[in-house]
Amino acid sequence: MSGDLSARKIKRFSESERSSDFDAATQKALEEIDVCQNEIDNINEKASEDILKIEQKYNQLRKPFFEKRNQIISNIPNFWITAIMNHPDLSTLLDDSEEDCLHHLTKLEVEEFEDIKSGYWIKFYFEENPYFENAVITKQYHLGCATPKSESTQIIWREGCNLGQPSETTRGGRKRRYEMKTFF
Amino acid sequence: MSGDLSARKIKRFSESERSSDFDAATQKALEEIDVCQNEIDNINEKASEDILKIEQKYNQLRKPFFEKRNQIISNIPNFWITAIMNHPDLSTLLDDSEEDCLHHLTKLEVEEFEDIKSGYWIKFYFEENPYFENAVITKQYHLGCATPKSESTQIIWREGCNLGQPSETTRGGRKRRYEMKTFF
Repeated sequence: MSGDLSARKIKRFSESERSSDFDAATQKALEEIDVCQNEIDNINEKASEDILKIEQKYNQLRKPFFEKRNQIISNIPNFWITAIMNHPDLSTLLDDSEEDCLHHLTKLEVEEFEDIKSGYWIKFYFEENPYFENAVITKQYHLGCATPKSESTQIIWREGCNLGQPSETTRGGRKRRYEMKTFF
Repeated sequence: MSGDLSARKIKRFSESERSSDFDAATQKALEEIDVCQNEIDNINEKASEDILKIEQKYNQLRKPFFEKRNQIISNIPNFWITAIMNHPDLSTLLDDSEEDCLHHLTKLEVEEFEDIKSGYWIKFYFEENPYFENAVITKQYHLGCATPKSESTQIIWREGCNLGQPSETTRGGRKRRYEMKTFF
């Protein structure tokens, strides 16, 4: 049914061949496709801008409800540590001392950057506690670049309380699954 | 620094415990959170509707350019088989007979369903060919349900040309990497 398969085999282009080797008609067609593609890209760009505006508008509308919810949450003792310890992924990250430390977590805020897609920050608010001096620890996630990266507030640990460093004795009853993998 | 870790350990809730065991104040707070969450859900719903409208609007604006691009593409010999054979994932799916068959692929259309998130279809248009009778083969992807599923037009293979079934002799020069994993 296909007697001459080998003659019809499609050439795989190497990088250097991509813009050569075409006849004039195909070359012209490829240029027309390029023009067409630019128009489509412009439309896509406008669509993204419109969607961004919608998302920003609704972020503003959600904000008072998030604030109200945070206010209600603050009246529930141990809300965040309870939520974290009941989360199957988060709870395995914590050893006993970290769990104890997170009893002092009083409020958690998540907010997208103004242009939304470039990232978001999470703010962890702590009451006065025996572990560190910070009242707020902020973690920022930058998603706009090719390799997403995160930045955290430097934690000012109190003497002998650095949960980010391995201690000489095993802290608490549970052992970490991976040495130095820590919530902080 | 934390002499009474065990007493402060947070209870992990089982399914049956979730709505009991709270004092009256906490119970009331949880109900208020629920009301608040409903408001947020309503806002999310409206945001989704607005974004859907934007996407539908821009899909319409893109359409004439997609059609124009398809028109230009139809003037380039072997456009689709060349594109497929130069795609690192797709090309490994094809044996020689499938590659030969796809020389008869003349047009490819992708369109989202009206409500966008529920799925999309891909239409493959073929010229008269020795493999099957269909002029169009449609593949629909349904993404709205918990388990995404796909449906295809039944292919009416010509006698002895069913590329979806293993042949007694190895077809063409290349062997499939996995038996019965086929483009069709």
